[in-house]
Amino acid sequence: MSVTNEFLAANEAYAASFGKGDLSMPPARKVTVVTCMDARLDPAKFLGLVEGDAHVIRNAGGRVQDALRSLIISEQLLGTTEIVVIHHTDCGMLTFSNADLRTKLQQELHINAENIDFLPFSNLEQSVRDDVSYLKDSEFIPKSITVSGYIYDVKTGKLLPVA
Amino acid sequence: MSVTNEFLAANEAYAASFGKGDLSMPPARKVTVVTCMDARLDPAKFLGLVEGDAHVIRNAGGRVQDALRSLIISEQLLGTTEIVVIHHTDCGMLTFSNADLRTKLQQELHINAENIDFLPFSNLEQSVRDDVSYLKDSEFIPKSITVSGYIYDVKTGKLLPVA
Repeated sequence: MSVTNEFLAANEAYAASFGKGDLSMPPARKVTVVTCMDARLDPAKFLGLVEGDAHVIRNAGGRVQDALRSLIISEQLLGTTEIVVIHHTDCGMLTFSNADLRTKLQQELHINAENIDFLPFSNLEQSVRDDVSYLKDSEFIPKSITVSGYIYDVKTGKLLPVA
Repeated sequence: MSVTNEFLAANEAYAASFGKGDLSMPPARKVTVVTCMDARLDPAKFLGLVEGDAHVIRNAGGRVQDALRSLIISEQLLGTTEIVVIHHTDCGMLTFSNADLRTKLQQELHINAENIDFLPFSNLEQSVRDDVSYLKDSEFIPKSITVSGYIYDVKTGKLLPVA
């Protein structure tokens, strides 16, 4: 069975006992989580979120620079007042440099990616502090928005406050 | 209790029965899901994903143009071979235009956002087709990568194939 057929079968089971069709669009808990796309992370489970609770933005590394469009929409149009940034241990972003990936793309796909910053990092705690500072300093994020930063440990499932 | 304290309390319960500390970094099912940050969506639940299965990229609308950095990292460095794009009914992206949001930002925060495309859309099915086409045409996405597109119905929990 292909992955998409597996998805459709799993979805049929989910929809059969759904009962959440009357939730409203703005997040009930007025919070937006920014975290990594990593397969080992299930932010709804590790934060105790249910459908309707929170915006969840995910990208490679959970980098906020790459989430700004979504964060502006979340706050300006959907009333969230808090941002929680969560990076994690053993992140792929710790394993390569922009130069590494640009060389690979040039060699294997023959394309020039010099204008793409892949936003890798070499220090996990610092990447969380940097992203929290970036939001606190951004003119697009009103000073009334609370911003905090955490590390999720993929070995233990634990969340550690950082900033 | 603040939202972050609630998150830490929920996380303590999750970590207490974790038992998933030995998962490897590359997604076991070699698939990347791109979907919306909307609070009503829990893609792990509605697709039957467990920790370790799939990269999950989420942003406002589930727009792929805004996910390209992450998709390149997913495929080139972490071995995924399939992309599933999922937009959803009653999406916030159907409710505003770039001009609307730029005017709001100018009036309320006194900032110029003329250079930001917020990627709203006026036709849900078309936005899925557009995003699937964008990936199939992108020089950054190898032709060997399978791309498909779906709509998730927030009233029923059901996934509908589109492209």
